[in-house]
Amino acid sequence: MRLYTEPDHGVVGAVATAIAAAGGVVTAIDVAESSHDRLVVDVTCSSADTEHAAELEKAVSGIDGVTVHKVSDRTFLTHLGGIIEVSSKVPLKTRDDLSLAYTPGVGRVSKAISEHPEDVSRLTIKGNTVAVVTDGSAVLGLGNLGPGAALPVMEGKAALFKKFGDINAWPICLDTQDTDEIVRAVELIAPGFGGINLEDIAAPRCFEIEARLRERLDIPVFHDDQHGTAIVALAGLTNALRVVDKPLESSRMVVAGGGAAGTAIVALLLAAGVTDIIVYDRAGCLVAGDETLSATHAELAARTNPRGVRGSLRDALQGADAFLGVSAPGILRPEWIAEMAPDPIVFAMANPDPEVDPVAASKHAAVVASGRSDFPNQINNVLAFPGVFRGLLDARASQVTVEMMLRAADAIAHVVSDEELNPSYIIPTVFHPDVHHAVATAIRGA
Amino acid sequence: MRLYTEPDHGVVGAVATAIAAAGGVVTAIDVAESSHDRLVVDVTCSSADTEHAAELEKAVSGIDGVTVHKVSDRTFLTHLGGIIEVSSKVPLKTRDDLSLAYTPGVGRVSKAISEHPEDVSRLTIKGNTVAVVTDGSAVLGLGNLGPGAALPVMEGKAALFKKFGDINAWPICLDTQDTDEIVRAVELIAPGFGGINLEDIAAPRCFEIEARLRERLDIPVFHDDQHGTAIVALAGLTNALRVVDKPLESSRMVVAGGGAAGTAIVALLLAAGVTDIIVYDRAGCLVAGDETLSATHAELAARTNPRGVRGSLRDALQGADAFLGVSAPGILRPEWIAEMAPDPIVFAMANPDPEVDPVAASKHAAVVASGRSDFPNQINNVLAFPGVFRGLLDARASQVTVEMMLRAADAIAHVVSDEELNPSYIIPTVFHPDVHHAVATAIRGA
Repeated sequence: MRLYTEPDHGVVGAVATAIAAAGGVVTAIDVAESSHDRLVVDVTCSSADTEHAAELEKAVSGIDGVTVHKVSDRTFLTHLGGIIEVSSKVPLKTRDDLSLAYTPGVGRVSKAISEHPEDVSRLTIKGNTVAVVTDGSAVLGLGNLGPGAALPVMEGKAALFKKFGDINAWPICLDTQDTDEIVRAVELIAPGFGGINLEDIAAPRCFEIEARLRERLDIPVFHDDQHGTAIVALAGLTNALRVVDKPLESSRMVVAGGGAAGTAIVALLLAAGVTDIIVYDRAGCLVAGDETLSATHAELAARTNPRGVRGSLRDALQGADAFLGVSAPGILRPEWIAEMAPDPIVFAMANPDPEVDPVAASKHAAVVASGRSDFPNQINNVLAFPGVFRGLLDARASQVTVEMMLRAADAIAHVVSDEELNPSYIIPTVFHPDVHHAVATAIRGA
Repeated sequence: MRLYTEPDHGVVGAVATAIAAAGGVVTAIDVAESSHDRLVVDVTCSSADTEHAAELEKAVSGIDGVTVHKVSDRTFLTHLGGIIEVSSKVPLKTRDDLSLAYTPGVGRVSKAISEHPEDVSRLTIKGNTVAVVTDGSAVLGLGNLGPGAALPVMEGKAALFKKFGDINAWPICLDTQDTDEIVRAVELIAPGFGGINLEDIAAPRCFEIEARLRERLDIPVFHDDQHGTAIVALAGLTNALRVVDKPLESSRMVVAGGGAAGTAIVALLLAAGVTDIIVYDRAGCLVAGDETLSATHAELAARTNPRGVRGSLRDALQGADAFLGVSAPGILRPEWIAEMAPDPIVFAMANPDPEVDPVAASKHAAVVASGRSDFPNQINNVLAFPGVFRGLLDARASQVTVEMMLRAADAIAHVVSDEELNPSYIIPTVFHPDVHHAVATAIRGA
């Protein structure tokens, strides 16, 4: 906080006391400016959350002779001016440097590419560059915030691409939510990129956009909210089944949430050989032939629920081996888990708040995973997308296939050795030294 | 060059001798691999140009027991893998770092922007980021090479933006040459950028694209091939006239080339108060009322040539104070310069080969400038665009105006002090410590 106070030591002391009394931790107090009639004081302190921060501000502004000028927090300071930047890989110190990097030298590179178009990946950034494309229609769990508000998320994604995949990723935030316009815009910008990562685009629009782009482009198109989630979920599920010693193919799965992630998880589970999957959405279990279903849900129903189970989530869970939630907070009652098959597996992946409290779930479940970073077994897309694109770019692949995704899931799973494997460690951390390289290798099929 | 030779010292010696004999300069010889039956030798040497390089290769491959495996050159090596990259401005070493840069922390930044859209420039890269947009239809002097072949040029531009303006610039190479599609594509990607630099887009298409984008976007749109060239040309002309002590307003100008650059130069000269400009294009001097002129040339003619001069370039030059060429190589005969007014000024800016050889021109002209880096007085866009966008971004300007451009030209001109000013130094180098800051300040109007 930046405070304006009377030039009085007592007042500054009172600030520290007030913050401490309100449960805050003061880490620094700085007098930024001093004049005969006032001090400008910068106070840095830690709070538990946004609400607590507001309380601390209230406590401080309550002090006589103190006005709170401005409150910033670490997250906002981190994003001030953005978190990625463009840098030059070549020195530009002399005129000779310029003539190599730019005119006249660059003209020969352009000529060479126009004569041998296939060289563009070798002689430009294209071979190691991905567009992170969004229309801002489904930003994190926050909904339709639009392209501007989506930009900081795309920047974060780009930073992770560089950190874990050594890939240049650039945010493209589109000022439209029209499917045709999104498809066309991505087609038009494609020449400068070696791959397209679709991000935070709402279902069902995202399915058609991805399908049409895959048909039209000669570079891979990957909607991370779908396939990244599916790959990591399957990796975790593979290891959870290793823990409880059940075979994947014959296990009964319940997937809660028929949106982008749920649809992709079902597709990957089916490709992996799972036969008994029930998809549960707001209105109940999806059953083939139900006239009330949307087109995408009808398609899901046609490929799942072989036993034709109808009804509530609780009905779906009877005798199920695993629950995979990508739906809404709190929809799974902990006691229902007791009605699943022996050694049930619960993945409560709704963000930011899971379908069931992981601690409560662990009372009944053999293995529990969630999307949260403050519990064990975080199902985190960052485990997949950097390695997936690293592998695709290295292979100059024009498509990402289901086989590649199955190999990637298996690679993530087997970063965890039999010795390490246990109910609280079914999935490696994103900082694991091997995981991203393992995924890239699996994608290349090497 | 990488050579395969017999494992014989004499052979390696012969290579050096052959290169020297052919006029090359060997700077390094490296034995990369050695086996009992052959050596792999990397030879680095300097050649005058592409033709000379071919001669050197021929000379070497002529030696007994030597095969030339591969020849690379410095320019291509410089561009291998591209010359720009994306980097993260924040550390991503711990889970806490991730939660600030990406989820869950970033969600609060997105929410804040959706509530206060004007904060997007402050809380993201938008405020310091420019799109370098091309359709590849007029790549340098090379013509319509398409978006892929244009990419290395856009990368070079982006590198210069960073070096001289500390601006993030990202290449957008569009897979269309349709005016409507280009306009729409730029509109759609605009939310992530604070400015649009149009580059290497052919005339007359470029005029309509720029005009329509300026109307529709709330961020500045600047076609560098037009206005960058015009700003630097006017800066040079200002100082050339300082040298010969003539007033700008009453000087007679001949502009050769009625394309993008020529049109912009005329517009800026008129705005600067010049009244007597003749535009010469392939077919002759542009004269108002000529039915054979294209729409854009007719418009140019309507604003120029008050004396209604018809005929050849030589006719236009009679009594002219300055020649400004942005046309084609060799169209200006040196002896015609003698027929201009006393102390004539010649700017032969055609790239890569000027309208007249600068050395030959200097026999008759008081001041000679060109686009070439190997003669004094290089008229180089790099003097303008980094500072122009630096100023626009700092001012959060939504438009770039003619007044700003006039101020920018004046700022570049006055980086050269009266003491420094002379016929061989009318324009500062792009490495001048003050020039880019001076342009930015002038654009801001400060």
